[in-house]
Amino acid sequence: MYEVEVKVRADHETVRERLRELDARSLGTVTQEDFYYDAPHRDFAETDEALRIRREADDDDAVEVVTYKGPLVEQESKTRKEHETVVGNGETVDQLLSALGFESAATVHKERERYELDSYVVSLDTVTGLGEFVEVETETNESGVEPARVGAYEVLHELGLDPDDQIRTSYLGLLLEDE
Amino acid sequence: MYEVEVKVRADHETVRERLRELDARSLGTVTQEDFYYDAPHRDFAETDEALRIRREADDDDAVEVVTYKGPLVEQESKTRKEHETVVGNGETVDQLLSALGFESAATVHKERERYELDSYVVSLDTVTGLGEFVEVETETNESGVEPARVGAYEVLHELGLDPDDQIRTSYLGLLLEDE
Repeated sequence: MYEVEVKVRADHETVRERLRELDARSLGTVTQEDFYYDAPHRDFAETDEALRIRREADDDDAVEVVTYKGPLVEQESKTRKEHETVVGNGETVDQLLSALGFESAATVHKERERYELDSYVVSLDTVTGLGEFVEVETETNESGVEPARVGAYEVLHELGLDPDDQIRTSYLGLLLEDE
Repeated sequence: MYEVEVKVRADHETVRERLRELDARSLGTVTQEDFYYDAPHRDFAETDEALRIRREADDDDAVEVVTYKGPLVEQESKTRKEHETVVGNGETVDQLLSALGFESAATVHKERERYELDSYVVSLDTVTGLGEFVEVETETNESGVEPARVGAYEVLHELGLDPDDQIRTSYLGLLLEDE
């Protein structure tokens, strides 16, 4: 599975209005805490990979997932191979990873307000320490990467945003840059 | 969490009769497929650790769990630190581990008939390629390891089995020895 994702800095109130005009379907708001790891045998900063446990919660429920992200496969967008699955207990996965020599690298905390528009998910992200961003995202197989990216650019245009403002650095990367 | 476990070779029919006499509660029978991994940065055979994905199925249902087992912490039994949690999709965890450089080492397939006796689980294991075994197992915290081991020996005696026949090598180890 490939994750195609385009991200820009943007004021949420303006984008929210545009989403209403476009009749985007609200998918609700969640908080996400992402715990990133360093590997004992590779420098993820160099190999451009990531391993994380995410705890996602809304008012009713919480779910924990473990995610591996491979290096960028397409430079025009933030497209990566992704392996992600729900886990019963995120703390146990943390203990398992620690026992294997993976070390806690950093935590990214954000509030994510999601909308569905065409076949894309538009996320209005408020990231602690970084500010407001808009992400346009979809999943596809290998041959679908290029059309999915073109479609994501179109969604950005519809929202009054400019693909040229795209930020290819992850929130984790942006936070580490700030340190 | 520590897993205290004592294992002997034993004919199941005799033990099954003894379990009936002792009014042990049947917990049903499952099949377990255990997929073990080699690490890219450590020799698990040397460090005496294990990482596996288990697919456990009964007639109605299947569940997949990921498990890390640390080195033996008590020589008198097969006691290890264990981190285990359910995962949504075992195949995705396999892809995630492969991407991180973990390689498939071996698969252990068994049928496991479980009983509850006192605070122990007694498993009648039929392991493909190895034959019939009985495991007496419980979970405890660090201070409970010694009493839990003594209790497991008592359960073995009750079942007409001898703790001196204990096999400390894992099924994986036994299968690899046979190769």
